[in-house]
This record gives sequence, structure tokens and C-alpha cells, in this order.
Amino acid sequence: MRPMILPRLPTHASVAAMYPGPSDIEAAAARIASRVRHTPLLRLRDDELGLGYPITLKLELLQHAGSFKPRGAFNRILAAQEAGELPTAGVIAASGGNHGAAVAFVARALGLPAEIFVPELTPPAKRARIESFGARLVRTGATYAEALQASRARAAETGAMEVHAYDHPMVLAGQGTTAREFEADAPDLTHVLVAAGGGGLIGGMAAWYSSRVKLISVEPAACPALHDALASGHPVEAPVGGVAADSLGARQVGALMFPIAAVHVSEAVLVSDDAIRAAQRLLWDRVRLVAEPGGATALAALTSAAWTPPPGARVGVLVCGSNTDPGSVAT
Amino acid sequence: MRPMILPRLPTHASVAAMYPGPSDIEAAAARIASRVRHTPLLRLRDDELGLGYPITLKLELLQHAGSFKPRGAFNRILAAQEAGELPTAGVIAASGGNHGAAVAFVARALGLPAEIFVPELTPPAKRARIESFGARLVRTGATYAEALQASRARAAETGAMEVHAYDHPMVLAGQGTTAREFEADAPDLTHVLVAAGGGGLIGGMAAWYSSRVKLISVEPAACPALHDALASGHPVEAPVGGVAADSLGARQVGALMFPIAAVHVSEAVLVSDDAIRAAQRLLWDRVRLVAEPGGATALAALTSAAWTPPPGARVGVLVCGSNTDPGSVAT
Repeated sequence: MRPMILPRLPTHASVAAMYPGPSDIEAAAARIASRVRHTPLLRLRDDELGLGYPITLKLELLQHAGSFKPRGAFNRILAAQEAGELPTAGVIAASGGNHGAAVAFVARALGLPAEIFVPELTPPAKRARIESFGARLVRTGATYAEALQASRARAAETGAMEVHAYDHPMVLAGQGTTAREFEADAPDLTHVLVAAGGGGLIGGMAAWYSSRVKLISVEPAACPALHDALASGHPVEAPVGGVAADSLGARQVGALMFPIAAVHVSEAVLVSDDAIRAAQRLLWDRVRLVAEPGGATALAALTSAAWTPPPGARVGVLVCGSNTDPGSVAT
Repeated sequence: MRPMILPRLPTHASVAAMYPGPSDIEAAAARIASRVRHTPLLRLRDDELGLGYPITLKLELLQHAGSFKPRGAFNRILAAQEAGELPTAGVIAASGGNHGAAVAFVARALGLPAEIFVPELTPPAKRARIESFGARLVRTGATYAEALQASRARAAETGAMEVHAYDHPMVLAGQGTTAREFEADAPDLTHVLVAAGGGGLIGGMAAWYSSRVKLISVEPAACPALHDALASGHPVEAPVGGVAADSLGARQVGALMFPIAAVHVSEAVLVSDDAIRAAQRLLWDRVRLVAEPGGATALAALTSAAWTPPPGARVGVLVCGSNTDPGSVAT
């Protein structure tokens, strides 16, 4: 699964500054500390999910607005506010749903106007969530990429600041705080599995862990953007489909995250939609957690045996989102 | 809310031995440590639920079998096993659902036969859960008390060991491990709110905390067994009804828990069914947790302002059960 040719992180100072590193993630953690939840861990023994080995879940699905996304959104928007760069028109974002909910949540918390562009595939639960936080919702385009294009045309009219869902240094650094917490609370882990879409989360986590743990990306086979990028040695366009497309359906991974992932993501695993649904049902049945498809995707790599740990591994799994109809997870 | 006449805990050694104290809870914790989940905390800031003060949730709803009940069931059954007192006929229990699921879970883990008697009001989700663990389910009687009577008649035939849902020293000591964990992980708390039914949980927790924190019992107004007992100075028969009757609908609190509660429970608060439903919806909307009505009852005292903390209080809330149709909590 490793790419044939590994890019290196740029060493020229002016370029390297764009790629968030541990100090940027420390700064992000300090900036957002009073705004986000320090999400808890749950340690499960060998037999609890039938795996035959213990795992440590980080319950990031209990984060504000139902996913990890407020970490990056707070960091991006607070940093702009500190720099005096926030326009009076407020913020604008395109999103499959979770990032939009996060930006709407952050905008409400900071008293800013917000417009959120979502594609047609964004489910009702996520649209309702965005509107519940007081943002203006615009539904347009078949995929995230089309909604992004429409949001940029709108931003050109209004002057609102774009909060990109993943391809921005401040967003990456914010998402990276997830790994900082995970490492502080579970310093024993050797392998951590994380779902990937546009790659903001795993890119930020890779920048934090810097190969101190083996970071395994997990994607639906129907949305293999990071898998395909790593196999190709550069970001490439990939299909977008399946049950987790609303949260993991980026057409292509971010340009900023890719060099970090190429160095610090050790494997890219694909799972079936059936495996994702089964992991959702298992999380409800055994642990009473409601994960959305994207939130259960990392676990699905274990429960479907798409990935199995080497002997002696101590495995962590990020459960990263829960914005779904809770009735959908019942067995 | 305090009873006019406070009973004292018996001091005669042979009687006092029936009432579990901290050393019994330490022994229970050691006995069940490898069998139950150490459930995590989630700290919420002043504004997260609109309360105006922070609270610390203990997520006991993520325990095996969806409630705190396996703590007591494991302690009772493992202690009998250690003593060589387990009959070949296995175990039998009456339950509104959660205790039955726990006994069935424990019996499966230990390879024992189990029969579980539930009343008509036990919801389908709980009946399915009990059967999923391989126990024989018997549905009989309108209330828990009637199911208990039927289970005792059956036990007399089979010789199976009764695992009482609350009124047994080993069950109380097992449930008390919840408080031991809560105090170890959140030693700063001054007040802890806990739902009460038959009183096994709050009795065990009261025995642990021994008034080091102020323990507040919360019951539905439709199931006020502990409130009425404390007001009367002794256990009395109380109504059983409302949305949480399947988990909190004991006709009368346990004889063993009452003297402990009379000394170490500082207030008994009642909440409406509407307040319980609202707390369930709030937990889903803001925290993405699915609590059953009984699991949201303690929080409902805060969110409905049936109880408000004094200045300087640091408030903990036990969220104790999640065995419900997850679709029922959507807003």
C-alpha cells in the first residue's frame, strides 16, 4: 500500500511554513482549548467486539456539532480573528455536512454570519443541524466539489472568508489536536486507525504523530482518494460514492495534507460499504454509540479484518462522527 | 426533603455485616475489574447544555449490556462461584429489563444457564437484548413486583440462584463500584446526581461516598419510591408509572439500601416525564448520547431546574442506561 516513490516534506523554509507541524498543533490546541471538548477514551478488551485483541476508542463523535470538525474550524476562524482578518461578511464554507455544521457552530459561538453550501447528497440530519446553528444553508451540486465551486462564486460576491473543509494549514493544525489528545491520554498505542476523506483529519494527525505511531488510513472502497493518491505518488481524482460519501466523499485529497501523509501514513486500507454498516451496528449493539458511516469506517477495517494488527500491536481507533439518524444504527 | 427521623446504620456487628461498606466495594471492584468497563467521563462547560454551570457526566450508559447493572450482577454471581455456592441450575432474576440483560450477559460470560422474568411493560428493545445473550425469557405480570413473585416460584422448582435486582449486599457493593470510579476520576465533585429505582445503584454509591459528596437522588414523579421512603422514614409502597417505569419502577426501595440512603443521600428530587424526555433529546442533540428515560432522569433534574446547585458546587451526573430504541431520542 505504500507509494512507490515517497515525496519528502519540503525543506525550504518559505514552503515548509505552509505545512503544519507539531508547534502549529500546540498553538492550535492552546487557541481552541476553551472551545472544544476533550473527548474521552473507551478501552475495549479482546473479546468485546470479537476481535481477539484489545482496542482503544477515542470518542470524538461526542465532540461539539457531532464530529471532530469544530477543532479545525475554531482554529482557522479564531486565528483569523486574532490577526484582524475576519471580514464583516463573516465566513463561508462548502461541506458534505459535518464541516458545515462545525463552521455554523463556530460562527454562532463567535457571533459571525455564516453561509454553508452543501451538495444534494448531504442527508437531512446534517442539513437540519447546520440550520439549527443559525447559518444560511444553500443546497447545490451533486458532490462536495460542486458545492465548493458554488461557495467560491458566492464568496467573491460577498467578501466572506472561506473556511476550507481540509486544505488549509490552520484547519489541518486544528484537526491535529485530536492526535495530541489521543497521544496524551493513550501514550501506549503503536497503531492508530483513522478514516480519511479530504484528508484534513489524518493529515493533521500525521503531522502530530510524525511516525511515532503507525497511522493507518481507512476509506470506503467507494471513496478511495487517499489510497489512490498514495498509490500514485500525488493527489489524483477518485470516485465518490457509497454510504459514507457525505462525510468521506472528497474527489481528491488536499494538496497540503498529501506530502505529510506520504511520509507519515503507513498504510491505506479500503473497506466495503457492508463492512461500514456492520461496524455501525456493532458499535450500537456492544457499546451503545451511534456513529455515522464515516464515523464507523476506521473501526470497520478491524471488524471486517481488512486490516489486522501485527503481534504486540496496541491499537487505537478514532470514532469521528455521529451526525446521522440514530434509528439507522439499530440491529 | 430530608426525612424527619433519620435511622442510623446498625452498629451490631452481625447486622452491620449485611450493609456493604467501602471495603466491600473495594472487594467488589477487585472481583469484577476484568469483567466490566471502566466508563469514561465527559466534562461539559457552563453553556453546553444551557445550564450556566459546568457538569461532569459519567458515561455509564456505555457499560456492557447498556447499563450499570453488570457491576452488581458480576459481583453477586462471581462471589457465589468463589464460595462454591452456584447451583447447577444456574441463575434466575426478575427485572424491568436492564438487570435481566445484565444477568443474561454475566451468565453467558460465565457459561451458566439463566432465566429472566420481565413484566409486560418491559419494552421490546430490552426483551430482545436479554434473549440475544442466550437467556430464557419469561414475560409475566404487570409490574416488576409481579415478575419477581413469579421468578421466585420458578426458583423454588429449579433450584436456580436468585440474583436480586437491588436488595442484596453483593449487588449493592457491585453497583457501588460506580461511585469508586467516579470519585477516582473526578475527585473534585461536591454533588453527584443519580437516578433511583429500587435503590441498588444509589445505595451502593452512598455506601462508597459516605457523605464525602452530597448525593442527590432523582426519580420520576411517577415512580417516587425513594423520595417517599425518605419522607416516611422507612420504605413504603409507591406508585409505579410513567416513561421510565421499566428501569426505575420498583414498588418499594430495598430494605438493605434504605438505612444507607437515609444517612448518606442528601436530597430526593422528583422530575416530570416531560423533563425526562427533554433531557433525552438534549443529550442526543448536544452530546450525541442515546440515554433511555431512566438514564436521562438524573440529568433531567438539572435541565428542568428541579434541582439547582448551590454556589461553588461542582456537579457530577451519572448517565446510567441506554437500552432503548435509538430512534426515540431524535429531536
